[in-house]
Amino acid sequence: MSKIRIGIVGYGNLGRGVELAVMQNPDMELVAVFTRRNPSTIQVSNDSVGVYLVEDIKDFQDKIDVMILCGGSAKDLPEQTPEISQWFHTIDSFDTHALIPEFFEKVDKTAKMSDKVSIISVGWDPGLFSLNRLLGEVVLPVGNTYTFWGDGLSQGHSDAVRRIVGVKNAVQYTLPVQEAVDRVRNGEQPELSTREKHKRECFVVLEEGASRKEVEQQIITMPNYFADYDTTVHFISEEELEKNHSGMPHGGFVIRSGVSGNQDRQLMEFSLKLESNPNFTSSVLVAFARAAYRLGQLGQSGAKTVYDIPFGLLSPKSAAQLRAELL
Amino acid sequence: MSKIRIGIVGYGNLGRGVELAVMQNPDMELVAVFTRRNPSTIQVSNDSVGVYLVEDIKDFQDKIDVMILCGGSAKDLPEQTPEISQWFHTIDSFDTHALIPEFFEKVDKTAKMSDKVSIISVGWDPGLFSLNRLLGEVVLPVGNTYTFWGDGLSQGHSDAVRRIVGVKNAVQYTLPVQEAVDRVRNGEQPELSTREKHKRECFVVLEEGASRKEVEQQIITMPNYFADYDTTVHFISEEELEKNHSGMPHGGFVIRSGVSGNQDRQLMEFSLKLESNPNFTSSVLVAFARAAYRLGQLGQSGAKTVYDIPFGLLSPKSAAQLRAELL
Repeated sequence: MSKIRIGIVGYGNLGRGVELAVMQNPDMELVAVFTRRNPSTIQVSNDSVGVYLVEDIKDFQDKIDVMILCGGSAKDLPEQTPEISQWFHTIDSFDTHALIPEFFEKVDKTAKMSDKVSIISVGWDPGLFSLNRLLGEVVLPVGNTYTFWGDGLSQGHSDAVRRIVGVKNAVQYTLPVQEAVDRVRNGEQPELSTREKHKRECFVVLEEGASRKEVEQQIITMPNYFADYDTTVHFISEEELEKNHSGMPHGGFVIRSGVSGNQDRQLMEFSLKLESNPNFTSSVLVAFARAAYRLGQLGQSGAKTVYDIPFGLLSPKSAAQLRAELL
Repeated sequence: MSKIRIGIVGYGNLGRGVELAVMQNPDMELVAVFTRRNPSTIQVSNDSVGVYLVEDIKDFQDKIDVMILCGGSAKDLPEQTPEISQWFHTIDSFDTHALIPEFFEKVDKTAKMSDKVSIISVGWDPGLFSLNRLLGEVVLPVGNTYTFWGDGLSQGHSDAVRRIVGVKNAVQYTLPVQEAVDRVRNGEQPELSTREKHKRECFVVLEEGASRKEVEQQIITMPNYFADYDTTVHFISEEELEKNHSGMPHGGFVIRSGVSGNQDRQLMEFSLKLESNPNFTSSVLVAFARAAYRLGQLGQSGAKTVYDIPFGLLSPKSAAQLRAELL
């Protein structure tokens, strides 16, 4: 059987993760990486993989089946997904929740015109967590759903701290509040405020001469980012930051706490504990690339989300094999 | 919009659970219960629901959309699902793993001939756990999957203990071995024997004059059921059994422990903690009944498993609503 031919658009953390994830899937091969940078400045791990300018992407229509779009949700994907779905099946991780309906409609139009399948908003949240939020409410319609994130590095919040005058470098972690998690797991169904669900922890390297007190004050009072949370600020050395805080861990859990028939308390939980957030997200994208390809073979087209994909299509195994081995 | 009309075949723990679960889903209504017993001996909770003999089921072709089959896998379902799928969409919880392929083929034939959808082997295992076993191996192809069951009451093992001479009554619980669970959650990927994964605990009421020692010995050496496990036997009074062991709790977890791209350890876990095993299973059956009905409306037919069902079809919400609210 011929392999599913994959292209990567955007070669940051996510793009590199997709490159590694494709290597773990013997039914796929990476054909090319597309970038807006100068291709000669990019070193991919396999010499047989070409690096090209995004402008040249449409020349690859006969060589690539699925393009995995690894750009950001703010600027890249709103343009790239509609454009690239004119020529290829696509997968992206568009995660601006409020704009998903509009984005879906736009992509659906182009993908339907080109007879391609475009699965949007894939990853773990949106993505695997979304699947579990749905599963929770359909199986236990009487109940509450709780999504907790962490322990995990937040890129956006780390950047916000780094922008403060006097901060040389910083990372920020989001952590679920253990007491809240315990109450939910205990079947209590509490109402939880933002502050009661998550807390934030910052590790900051100061510029020489900067005031701890002032920097701390600026962090913990920052609206939207920190003011609504209990935030702890630790000041550490550059070496310590490098040594202990250079990974990108993340995770979290979706809990559905409900009652069935006779007021029986029932608890469903899906959780992730990730040493590398981008490499896990990439692995999810790659599995859904297989489903996009298969849906295309079945004659489907248009924009899809994780809610439209039967799990069987995610696997290289046949339906009969899945029934015999895994059900 | 008209409601999805549900019928129940078999009115034991599972059938009663389906009756209660349908009440939690406003887009469905229970029309009738079918039994092999004398219908007049069966008291359902809602007077508007009729109770009929299974033999009369085909008279209901215009009145019921989906039949939820609540019989056992050993004797009932192998006959009932193929027969009833001649006239109705069906859902069942067929759980004899080794016979699933053969069962699927048989049901597929009848359901395709009648243009009906028949989703087999629905519940939590097989069912929700199967979905998570698949998800684990497609997202983290390099890794190991672990399924643990418990703490939970096992009907089959309880029956086996009750058959021992000198035992008046008994219940048996299956429990995951905490040390094994901790090692897996810690990302170790150990090889685990049957004994290392689960242990068994029995609560036994003796007949007057029966020997504790002999009964205990018979339990812990019983082949297939107990010999391969560390088993603890507690002798208790009839009152204590009634008071503390009359529920049907169960649960368990599916853990995928894998490594992505750069040897990053990644952990996915799905877990259930259930006060009532049959009422939870029923709730899953009812959610998939909605999907069977919807697939039928889309013109599909034949046997399906949970692997063939996009999650979106499980929900009463429209695809657009799901994208806006839940993704």
